[in-house]
Amino acid sequence: MKSEELKRLIREIPDFPKKGILFYDITTLLGNGRALRTAADLLFGHYDSEGKSFDKVASMESRGFIFGAMLAYKFGAGFVPIRKPGKLPAKAFSQEFEKEYGFDSFEVHSDAIEKGEKVLICDDLLATGGTAAAAVRLVERMDGKVNGLAFLIELSFLNGREKLGGYDVFSLLKYEK
Amino acid sequence: MKSEELKRLIREIPDFPKKGILFYDITTLLGNGRALRTAADLLFGHYDSEGKSFDKVASMESRGFIFGAMLAYKFGAGFVPIRKPGKLPAKAFSQEFEKEYGFDSFEVHSDAIEKGEKVLICDDLLATGGTAAAAVRLVERMDGKVNGLAFLIELSFLNGREKLGGYDVFSLLKYEK
Repeated sequence: MKSEELKRLIREIPDFPKKGILFYDITTLLGNGRALRTAADLLFGHYDSEGKSFDKVASMESRGFIFGAMLAYKFGAGFVPIRKPGKLPAKAFSQEFEKEYGFDSFEVHSDAIEKGEKVLICDDLLATGGTAAAAVRLVERMDGKVNGLAFLIELSFLNGREKLGGYDVFSLLKYEK
Repeated sequence: MKSEELKRLIREIPDFPKKGILFYDITTLLGNGRALRTAADLLFGHYDSEGKSFDKVASMESRGFIFGAMLAYKFGAGFVPIRKPGKLPAKAFSQEFEKEYGFDSFEVHSDAIEKGEKVLICDDLLATGGTAAAAVRLVERMDGKVNGLAFLIELSFLNGREKLGGYDVFSLLKYEK
């Protein structure tokens, strides 16, 4: 099973969440056990084949948790949930960001990452890059080292990569329009 | 690493999300790579040692996604996200439930599970059982077979198990008060 086959399992839904947006629905890929495992293995393999490992995998609530948790398991790394405001019970850092459909913010426990730890940021989708850039800032505020950003899907035409200049960005499935 | 060691990694936070509630914060366990892997392996092993397998693992947004995704990966099963209202882009079933801190509802894509598929429902926490019972109803409305419910933590004193009578319920870490 290759990337192109995975792409065929993604459902395209016009006008969601609002008119003019073409939504790439990954639930149809997730629901296929072979595809789910292949996608996780390919993301892992990208780093593993270069001998790269991570101390923590940090992912954005909530779809990001899906691939983030699988990758943390495979790397033997800890998993760090980056959450919507008000969800975390202990002392947390907050970071605002602009996204495709408005403004929002994320929080992460301030003791979630130790100084110098190698961190992989993982989310399902790289769109404008706003959420990913906020995740980078959160990790760096804890003096963690962002050694990679992994995405299942990249909407290349939104140029999210430009917001992540200087970081190692990898996406499995690219959409040009 | 055994269950008791995992339990020591869970942080207890009084009065969250409101006064009088003792919150079991799993982020301190998740952040420990060895503990994360051990917990996922123990949950998987409970079923695997009996030769049980599943076609789908269904989990509740958003903390449920973490262990649900790891278990889906390990079983080679598809992953079905059960989401908060308005998040899913295609035709979905909705189910209301009462929870410890109020009312809410969940949605799942109506084509997420096929008739007769064996489903494991997985969440981080079994409390009053309201969310788990709602997940059971959603799976059964699609004619899926709920062959197991797995939880990282069970708050035994809230008697959630009683709402799940007749189902195979397994939890890794139990709290009696």
